[in-house]
Amino acid sequence: MSAADAAAPTASSPAAPGLDPALAARLKRDPQGLVTAVVQDASSRRVLMVGWMDDEALHRTLTTGRATYWSRSRQELWVKGETSGHVQYVRSASLDCDGDTLLLEVDQIGPACHRDTDTCFDGGELEAVVLHPEERTA
Amino acid sequence: MSAADAAAPTASSPAAPGLDPALAARLKRDPQGLVTAVVQDASSRRVLMVGWMDDEALHRTLTTGRATYWSRSRQELWVKGETSGHVQYVRSASLDCDGDTLLLEVDQIGPACHRDTDTCFDGGELEAVVLHPEERTA
Repeated sequence: MSAADAAAPTASSPAAPGLDPALAARLKRDPQGLVTAVVQDASSRRVLMVGWMDDEALHRTLTTGRATYWSRSRQELWVKGETSGHVQYVRSASLDCDGDTLLLEVDQIGPACHRDTDTCFDGGELEAVVLHPEERTA
Repeated sequence: MSAADAAAPTASSPAAPGLDPALAARLKRDPQGLVTAVVQDASSRRVLMVGWMDDEALHRTLTTGRATYWSRSRQELWVKGETSGHVQYVRSASLDCDGDTLLLEVDQIGPACHRDTDTCFDGGELEAVVLHPEERTA
């Protein structure tokens, strides 16, 4: 491998040389170098899924218009919809006050979940106590 | 400490004896024993914040009607709004297909963020490429 090859950015580069350094400095990454990404449908306002991003995934998400994640199970970059066609087109992206969570608003093509449901939360409703207004003290 | 005291459930009990064992078995916790909780305003549909829950926090959230988290910075259970009054009353809770993320829909009293903004994402908008419809290939 030549010195030029060694210096070239690659998909697995942890440094993500393309990511705005000012933004990179604001990120508070977990021990795996990842931040949480909450994905919301820009039209229905439903929360579709949660993914994870390293610096390179965030850089690609912000510059290509398509949501790109780091797959923790496959340990690789993952352009959402690359194989399924169920692409997420980015409408907006925001970083939270702690710098460890992103909110993406997207136009979702097809179902967001690999089970072919609209969201990854469909069918997962839990039994929960819901207080009546008169029981609420705050 | 008597044997009875040692066996009594406490706030810091990792086993959270109160949590439905069938639900506990579905959770895929991170190395710190936590799952991600995405919090959405039930009325405005805005994503307010992301918190973290251990089994006990989830148990309390589902049984008290008030969102309760595990504070990773303070390493303690944290009833949202306990000091600020900015309580989150639970409207629904769902577990995602992977078992590692919860979605809470809540009635938020006051601002959700400690900075007194409606959400933790306010003011954090990032510059992002948004593809025009004719540039979208999927």
